[in-house]
Amino acid sequence: MPQILTFLGQSRSSCAIASVAFARQLAEQGARVLWLTQDSGPLPAVLWGQPLSTEAQALGANLWTLQLQSAQLLEKSWDVVKGIEAQYLRNPLLKQVFGQELVLLPGMEDALTLDAIRVLYDSQEYDYLIVDGISAKASLRMWGLPEQMDWYIRRFQKVLAESELARALSPFIQPVAGAVLNISGSQESINQPVQQARDFLAAGRQVVQSASHHLSFLVTTAEPGDADMARYLWGSAQQIGMTVGGAIAYQAQLDDQTFAPLPVHDFPPLADGNWQPLMAAVPSLDAAVQNAPSPVVINEAEKQVKLFLPGFSKADIDLTQYGPEVTVTAGDQRRNLFLPASLKNRSVQGAKFQEDYLILSF
Amino acid sequence: MPQILTFLGQSRSSCAIASVAFARQLAEQGARVLWLTQDSGPLPAVLWGQPLSTEAQALGANLWTLQLQSAQLLEKSWDVVKGIEAQYLRNPLLKQVFGQELVLLPGMEDALTLDAIRVLYDSQEYDYLIVDGISAKASLRMWGLPEQMDWYIRRFQKVLAESELARALSPFIQPVAGAVLNISGSQESINQPVQQARDFLAAGRQVVQSASHHLSFLVTTAEPGDADMARYLWGSAQQIGMTVGGAIAYQAQLDDQTFAPLPVHDFPPLADGNWQPLMAAVPSLDAAVQNAPSPVVINEAEKQVKLFLPGFSKADIDLTQYGPEVTVTAGDQRRNLFLPASLKNRSVQGAKFQEDYLILSF
Repeated sequence: MPQILTFLGQSRSSCAIASVAFARQLAEQGARVLWLTQDSGPLPAVLWGQPLSTEAQALGANLWTLQLQSAQLLEKSWDVVKGIEAQYLRNPLLKQVFGQELVLLPGMEDALTLDAIRVLYDSQEYDYLIVDGISAKASLRMWGLPEQMDWYIRRFQKVLAESELARALSPFIQPVAGAVLNISGSQESINQPVQQARDFLAAGRQVVQSASHHLSFLVTTAEPGDADMARYLWGSAQQIGMTVGGAIAYQAQLDDQTFAPLPVHDFPPLADGNWQPLMAAVPSLDAAVQNAPSPVVINEAEKQVKLFLPGFSKADIDLTQYGPEVTVTAGDQRRNLFLPASLKNRSVQGAKFQEDYLILSF
Repeated sequence: MPQILTFLGQSRSSCAIASVAFARQLAEQGARVLWLTQDSGPLPAVLWGQPLSTEAQALGANLWTLQLQSAQLLEKSWDVVKGIEAQYLRNPLLKQVFGQELVLLPGMEDALTLDAIRVLYDSQEYDYLIVDGISAKASLRMWGLPEQMDWYIRRFQKVLAESELARALSPFIQPVAGAVLNISGSQESINQPVQQARDFLAAGRQVVQSASHHLSFLVTTAEPGDADMARYLWGSAQQIGMTVGGAIAYQAQLDDQTFAPLPVHDFPPLADGNWQPLMAAVPSLDAAVQNAPSPVVINEAEKQVKLFLPGFSKADIDLTQYGPEVTVTAGDQRRNLFLPASLKNRSVQGAKFQEDYLILSF
């Protein structure tokens, strides 16, 4: 399976430069590399020295670039949505709305990008997908989508199933379903697509949360607040289960301890379009995967869950438990812990914050 | 009414620095200024020299700062959602889901931020709301939300009203509504909240699209691709009807023609936390509003609509018309033109691109 690489930092151009250096270096080593960007502005063309296309475009034997365009992705997805509607609805009504007129709302872009990445990932045409996002915060929301979306489905499915609303509606479900749906309105036929959606999201979550499938690097410059921001993003990435494999100091001198235990890689400036010095600074990915701290360590025997949250202090972290859900809020990231069966439905007995780890005992 | 100021550019830190200089200068001139940020990372504290709070915090006689926190905004909004549900549903079911456990999906943050800005705007406690976003692209999606959301409502309401689905369901609406809703299931009682939502969005669109209520500045640095990106963002901002009143060159030398007819304001670097040289470079806002090119000029007599789209070439622009909707796609922004009654339902007879203007004849 391919590996996805992402870059998190405050400086948009430095993250993009680092991602291009990785792409060029891995391709030169013989891997099939696709560099793709959500950036529809001019920066990608400046860095690659030529305009990009909304179809994968070869730049040499095993290097491709791709500029995703949300309006185009929305049109393609609209056809899929119409197909699903036609499968379930006797008289589809969305056929009167055309993909070409659909406008973009906040969040759509991220969901569409993630789905486009999924298709490229499953195609197995590439060894590396190097994803250039617009901002670290938006990227983290995007990568967190499979886990977070699944939470909404399981939470609201449970609420709905136990509700008086479902009981009040049940005498009507059969006749209404019979009038408008292609399928019978039984509970099973409604649960089936929900389960399909949950399986689909679970597959996405497993990719995002496995270091060998998805690895991130922090990027920092000498700009004010940049190193602090990288540490903040490090903790935020852990909150959605992403593995961070190293830090890149782009034209910056860093204290060795800033990102310990992560290795810091010094990147020289990009001068006169000469990528060789930057490519030479690209680290080994195997070593990065092996040495990266795990975002979550679950010890079922000791009934303990350890969350690695660098960049945060105890005061930034909020822990709540309502019914079966344990919710951890750190900065602007919130997560409902996905617990193994042995720890589910248990109360948190204790919580402490020690050396960048939040340790929960059940 | 207050004026909202926003800053669009590729460099996150330069946009934030420019926004702080404006806030300090306007406050010094005696206006009541609230500087608010979506950035939950460390940059705001670095620029202001002290930690920010999620409640408006006074920094002197008439200057306030505020760090929005999406998880907190989501909790507050959840109570509003529960209230609406309780108004319409006999047996509310959302009361079993707690605001504190809700996780954030892509896009939620922008919708929540926009709503928080609306409340601050309506409070009339400030003369200026200076909004520091995370990235220009996300900010543009956010400011476009009232117009784009309204489009989805009117488009799908029309499709649904004319559909066989509505006819197939109509015999069931009354009994189902009677069982679960507090209101009668008549068409009027369903149309009423839809009309309320549309009025609400129309008010938001009017603020975003009026220069005296919302003014943007482009920000560029000497980094590669930065000035090109600012031009691209200029055109993208026009696409959602926002007025751009000037360009800020932060530590950069620009050709006078790059942003013509906009004035370019040279900002010196922020050194040793001394804001005075930057504050002195803040331009007059009245002049900026008066001289800014209008994003849209509608000439009903000549049946002509002119859209100002700097930063784009004819090849970047796509124009489609399906039924009553005229859709303009420019780069990654798409807009369904909101036309006056005299031009509605007419076909586009001709389109040309001339000196940064797309000119449509009906």
